[in-house]
Amino acid sequence: MSKKIYVLDTTLRDGEQVPGAKLNLEEKLEVAKQLVKLKVDMMEVGFPSSSNGDFEAVKAISKAVGQDMIVTALGRAVTSDIDAIYESLKEAANPMIHIVLGSSGVHLEKKFKKTPQQIMEMGINAVKYAKSLMPQVQYSLEDASRSSFDYMWETIEGVVRAGATIINIPDTVGFAVPEEFGKLIYKINDRLMNLNPNVILSVHCHNDTGLATANTLAAVRNGANKVECTINGIGERAGNTSLEEVVMGIKLHPEYYGGYTTIETKEIYSTSRLVSATMGLDVQVNKAITGENAFAHSSGIHQDGLLKSKEVYEIIEPQDIGAPPMELVLTARSGRHAFMHIVERFGYQVVEKKIPEIYEAFLSMADQKKEVYDYDVVRLMEGYPKSYFIKQKSVTMWEMTDFQVIANTLFPTATVQMKKGEEVKIESKNGEGAVDALYSAIIAATEMPIKLQEYRIHNIARGKESLGKVCIEISYDGKSYQGKAIEKDVIKASGVALVNAINKVMQDREE
Amino acid sequence: MSKKIYVLDTTLRDGEQVPGAKLNLEEKLEVAKQLVKLKVDMMEVGFPSSSNGDFEAVKAISKAVGQDMIVTALGRAVTSDIDAIYESLKEAANPMIHIVLGSSGVHLEKKFKKTPQQIMEMGINAVKYAKSLMPQVQYSLEDASRSSFDYMWETIEGVVRAGATIINIPDTVGFAVPEEFGKLIYKINDRLMNLNPNVILSVHCHNDTGLATANTLAAVRNGANKVECTINGIGERAGNTSLEEVVMGIKLHPEYYGGYTTIETKEIYSTSRLVSATMGLDVQVNKAITGENAFAHSSGIHQDGLLKSKEVYEIIEPQDIGAPPMELVLTARSGRHAFMHIVERFGYQVVEKKIPEIYEAFLSMADQKKEVYDYDVVRLMEGYPKSYFIKQKSVTMWEMTDFQVIANTLFPTATVQMKKGEEVKIESKNGEGAVDALYSAIIAATEMPIKLQEYRIHNIARGKESLGKVCIEISYDGKSYQGKAIEKDVIKASGVALVNAINKVMQDREE
Repeated sequence: MSKKIYVLDTTLRDGEQVPGAKLNLEEKLEVAKQLVKLKVDMMEVGFPSSSNGDFEAVKAISKAVGQDMIVTALGRAVTSDIDAIYESLKEAANPMIHIVLGSSGVHLEKKFKKTPQQIMEMGINAVKYAKSLMPQVQYSLEDASRSSFDYMWETIEGVVRAGATIINIPDTVGFAVPEEFGKLIYKINDRLMNLNPNVILSVHCHNDTGLATANTLAAVRNGANKVECTINGIGERAGNTSLEEVVMGIKLHPEYYGGYTTIETKEIYSTSRLVSATMGLDVQVNKAITGENAFAHSSGIHQDGLLKSKEVYEIIEPQDIGAPPMELVLTARSGRHAFMHIVERFGYQVVEKKIPEIYEAFLSMADQKKEVYDYDVVRLMEGYPKSYFIKQKSVTMWEMTDFQVIANTLFPTATVQMKKGEEVKIESKNGEGAVDALYSAIIAATEMPIKLQEYRIHNIARGKESLGKVCIEISYDGKSYQGKAIEKDVIKASGVALVNAINKVMQDREE
Repeated sequence: MSKKIYVLDTTLRDGEQVPGAKLNLEEKLEVAKQLVKLKVDMMEVGFPSSSNGDFEAVKAISKAVGQDMIVTALGRAVTSDIDAIYESLKEAANPMIHIVLGSSGVHLEKKFKKTPQQIMEMGINAVKYAKSLMPQVQYSLEDASRSSFDYMWETIEGVVRAGATIINIPDTVGFAVPEEFGKLIYKINDRLMNLNPNVILSVHCHNDTGLATANTLAAVRNGANKVECTINGIGERAGNTSLEEVVMGIKLHPEYYGGYTTIETKEIYSTSRLVSATMGLDVQVNKAITGENAFAHSSGIHQDGLLKSKEVYEIIEPQDIGAPPMELVLTARSGRHAFMHIVERFGYQVVEKKIPEIYEAFLSMADQKKEVYDYDVVRLMEGYPKSYFIKQKSVTMWEMTDFQVIANTLFPTATVQMKKGEEVKIESKNGEGAVDALYSAIIAATEMPIKLQEYRIHNIARGKESLGKVCIEISYDGKSYQGKAIEKDVIKASGVALVNAINKVMQDREE
């Protein structure tokens, strides 16, 4: 029997707690609207009693998300917190109060100066009070996975009788293991079905030991019908359960989990990029589902297998989550098959017996470089005489032959020298910052009416060694193009990445 | 009964396949030596037949790692690959040949033009040949989790009889779910114990749906006694199983998993930083165990709980993995308790009845800013008259009041204006790149003999909006200090982060 699994997204509450990830009101509204497109069932959007900014944000979002979305906000089991939730949510079409209170031994002993019984009553009274204000009330037993079962169950009985409509079981510190957490949920679900089958059983896991997704899925298999997640798994410490991992996990094994979500999976990629960009939180390149390399194949064996059949190495298609098609990245481990695939894409058809020589040349270039870009392949091909090719297509590409960028507090200014075939251009522009000025100069020199969509830079260095890695996305004529570059200087890397993206546009136009 | 779980690290083979992560020989040797310190049992260091660079690297590493370490390299089930492995490993003290061959339906049908029986014989013959060259041979059944059990078992029987000493079960595409993968391992282990109890049963998982750690741990609980991992979980597509997650998972639940590893967990943090820095692969801030925020607490509830008792929110101590002590990061969600904790650390004792006013001022500052740094707190305090304090300590800090940086291909040059109290200094320096020049100028102006240990920059922007986030680590007098900054200009962010780190040194010196 397939059951609907409700998805609550807490990116704007638990996710936004990440140090440095604070959003302004406009950004929060943008994320909330994207979550509506993603079709999450519920969204938690703040902790209204924590600061005035939070209160106002909850209020604004709750008015903006429309009829179908359940909007909730968090507070402690005290009247003042619940009042703040009520005041901030009261204009929502479909509001819910969320109360959290510790239930584990360590929480009861160390955080409160009360007896366990007094704490339980605090929780029950809080639910009663919340229920007098709004019909939907969720109760979270903080640190549930480290709590005594009997105390926890007594609390659940109490708060359900007091009117709680959702019971949430958090693995607050990420301590649980899937099999045991599954058993705990099974036991709670079993009793809850007798107590009140209309109450929704929810889980909220943290990723401290890398098991949040597995614990959440084990709970779903064992009776939970609501999951709490964040986009890209962001959140306090090692973060929360990743929405995209749980949703795709359920989608990949619908019979095993006996359920489905109504998430619009094609919106996963855009949502991930939006959250990453607004919060300034990088998604690790190898993050499951939403990482830059999640669908990128680089080893020789894999590239070769993929060119024969996608099924061999792909269980999820990038298109399923709305991501751009998979990419073959050429490295020193790429096989001949993959390399020739790229060469042919550029319009070169190599004489059969010259292939080994060209492939060897590619390998020794790849051994020197971290990544081999389109431009490098074209340059390599251009170095061979006509006799090597059956067909040869000349693709003219731009190259940044020199640059100077001045970063200061007054007028950041950049000058570039660009070359395309025999054509040389020099342009200067100012901008809001060093990279902005550089980009304006490159765009002016190439006369390409492109728009910058996303700019990402990573640079990790020890001491003086430094390697800037830039990845950008531009749009031209309604289509998106990516460009990457790795250079010692972060400013130079930024320029080369844009030139690489522009060259992709050129190539596309010529085809 | 507690059993030893062998840990094979494949950071230098499967990990290094990440596009752009290619290491030079010197870097590979440095990583290999750190893996020796981490006390992994085995390390896989390359695919010798794939390129000459790889071959030479395997050769160099295998001579460098010493007696205790099993060194292995990968190849296909063909003579030329096995010869390349043998040639590259023959000078190792303790070498092992690793052969991989597909065993799932999709691999058998789509990748090879042979019958399943012919492919099985290819594998058996490869093991026989490898065994004639070296006593230790590992055989991997690629895509095992999607293979027919009977075909897989027949293959295992064949290769074990041919002399394989380790059978490795990969979840090549990250398709498995923990419970089912556990059952599969249980079944294989059960038969393998009868066939040859000396053969080690190993697993190698990929993280495409976020379950690599859970699948690996489920396998350990069900009989696997060797795990294949990478540092930070890097690798093809969504990466491999994270060594740190599996090792700490087993350490946290030794009875549940019935095993232990002999990993030197205090070396986990340094290893993670080294791999990240040499490969230029950022670790997501909320990565379990090794992320920058894995032990950082920012919500009011959590900070408050933590100040009462660490157990409340911490199951692993940063020191367990050799990481710097946990940090309270001040944000708009920080409670009064946490804020006053930081204020007092700076030597201020606030008059009781003035606390609410100062805390309110902090909250409205925090609502404006993404993160509140030490410098901001000190500045806030400096704005109040003496009557607000019982005790007041003046900490003089440096501020970068103006700057200009010229990035070009000739002489990158920076000029800074620095202020400390009434003191104003202007200095210019050139460097290898823009940031290098800026750092030399700041160090000259502040006259602080610090050494830069690590420099990390993230910048994610949509269109013209841009926010550079820099995190640096410097050393002074044998001690490490971190500095962070978020600014619109990446160059400015780099400068402010260094100044923040220098201010921490100043503060430490005054204490």
